[in-house]
Amino acid sequence: MTTTHSGTIPDAEPLAAAIDLGTALRGLIEVSVTTTVPAGEVRAAAELVRQVTEQLAVARRPASQLPALDDLPAGRRVFNPVTGPGSGLAPPLVVRRDGDGVVGEATLGLAYEGPPGFVHGGMSALLMDQLLGSAAAAAGLWGMTAHLELDYRGPLPLEQKLVLRARVAENEGRKSVITGTIAVADDPGRVLVEARGVFVLPRPEKVEAYFGSITDAAGRHTPPSRPTDATALDED
Amino acid sequence: MTTTHSGTIPDAEPLAAAIDLGTALRGLIEVSVTTTVPAGEVRAAAELVRQVTEQLAVARRPASQLPALDDLPAGRRVFNPVTGPGSGLAPPLVVRRDGDGVVGEATLGLAYEGPPGFVHGGMSALLMDQLLGSAAAAAGLWGMTAHLELDYRGPLPLEQKLVLRARVAENEGRKSVITGTIAVADDPGRVLVEARGVFVLPRPEKVEAYFGSITDAAGRHTPPSRPTDATALDED
Repeated sequence: MTTTHSGTIPDAEPLAAAIDLGTALRGLIEVSVTTTVPAGEVRAAAELVRQVTEQLAVARRPASQLPALDDLPAGRRVFNPVTGPGSGLAPPLVVRRDGDGVVGEATLGLAYEGPPGFVHGGMSALLMDQLLGSAAAAAGLWGMTAHLELDYRGPLPLEQKLVLRARVAENEGRKSVITGTIAVADDPGRVLVEARGVFVLPRPEKVEAYFGSITDAAGRHTPPSRPTDATALDED
Repeated sequence: MTTTHSGTIPDAEPLAAAIDLGTALRGLIEVSVTTTVPAGEVRAAAELVRQVTEQLAVARRPASQLPALDDLPAGRRVFNPVTGPGSGLAPPLVVRRDGDGVVGEATLGLAYEGPPGFVHGGMSALLMDQLLGSAAAAAGLWGMTAHLELDYRGPLPLEQKLVLRARVAENEGRKSVITGTIAVADDPGRVLVEARGVFVLPRPEKVEAYFGSITDAAGRHTPPSRPTDATALDED
C-alpha cells in the first residue's frame, strides 16, 4: 500500500492503483518481446495474464462512459494511449509547459521497434499528434487533428530518452497550426523529426454528433468543450 | 497445447506461444482501461503482472539481436508494434495483398481512445505509416519513412472494424510515394483518413551505419536489405 493524501485528491488510491497496473503492464510488454524462455513458460505466462484479465473483467464501464479517474475539464486522461500513466500502450509521454509551448519526454523500449534498433516511424507520428494537441491546450485552444505531417531527418534510437517540443505557430478562428520536433535528449539541437499539424475546433453541431452520448462516471453528459480536453498535460 | 505442424514450420510452438501471450496481453490491456473493480483488486492484478514479468525476464535477448521468431527476409516481425501478433501494443493490423496494393484490417478498442468514443488521431498515423511501408514491400520496394502526411475527414469509431488500403503511386530510384486510406469496413466508400508517404531506401553506407550491429538469433549479421524487411505482410 502506498501512503496517499486522500484529503486533497479524493481518488488518490484508485489513481495510484491504476498507475501501478499501467506501469506493470508496460514492464511485461517490454519483457514479452525480448524474453527467450521456453515456449511452455510463455504459455504459462499467457494463462496467468488471462486469469488476471478475468478478475478485472467482472466489473467494467460501458464505452460511452469516461473512466471515473478522468477529469476532462482538467485534462486528466489516465488511460490516454500516449500520455496515460495507466495505459499499458503509452510509453508514457510526460508533458509539461515550457515557455510558450510544451515539452514532452519519453524513452521507448524494444516493444516500439520498427526498423531493427530504431523507433517505428509511425510511433513518432503518434507521439507528435498527441504533443501538438497538448500545445494547443496549453495555449488555451482545443481541436481535433485535421492535418498532420512529419519530416523524418533520421531514425530515433530505442532506449534513449527523447525530447519532444511543440508550440502553436498560428491561430485563426477555429483553426490552429502547431509545429513540433523530436530529438534525442542528449543531443537536443539535432532535430530528427519535424512535425506540423492543423487542429480544428469542431462546430457545436459536430461536437453534439460526435460526443452527444458521452457521460462521466456519474452519468452526467460531458462533451469535450474546454481547451484541455484533448490532452493529458501534466501541470507543473 | 495447440496442434502444430512442426514439420513445415520448425518454430511453430514458440511462435504459437508468443502469439498466445500477445493475444492475452491485448485482452488484459483492454480490460485494464475499462475495469471498475476496487483499487485493491487492481493492485493485486499489478502484483501478478509483475510476477509474470519476473518469470519471463530470467532470459532475454540483447537489443541488437532480432527475435528468434522473426524472419527478416520473409518479412515476419512477430513483435512489430502495429502488425505483430505477439505484440501487446499492436491491435494487430492484419495485412494482405490486394490488387496492386495492400489492404489491412483492424478493430481498435477503448485502449486506443483519443477524443471520447473515437480512435486517437495519432493511431491513424501509426497504422498508416505501417501500411504504406507494407505497400512498398508488396511492390518489391523497401524504404524508411522520409515524409508522412495525413488528412482527417472524420473521426474513426472505436470497436468497429476498420479497413485500410495503400498502394505505391510513384517510384523513382530510391524514392517511393505511397498513398492510403482508412474507412469503416461497413462503409468502405466513405474515406475518413487519407495518407501520403514518401519512403526512401537508405544508401548502403547509411544501412551499415544504422543496422551494422544487428544480428539474428544465431548471431549472424543481418541488416535489412530486402523488400519485405520493413513489414509484416501476411502472405495469402
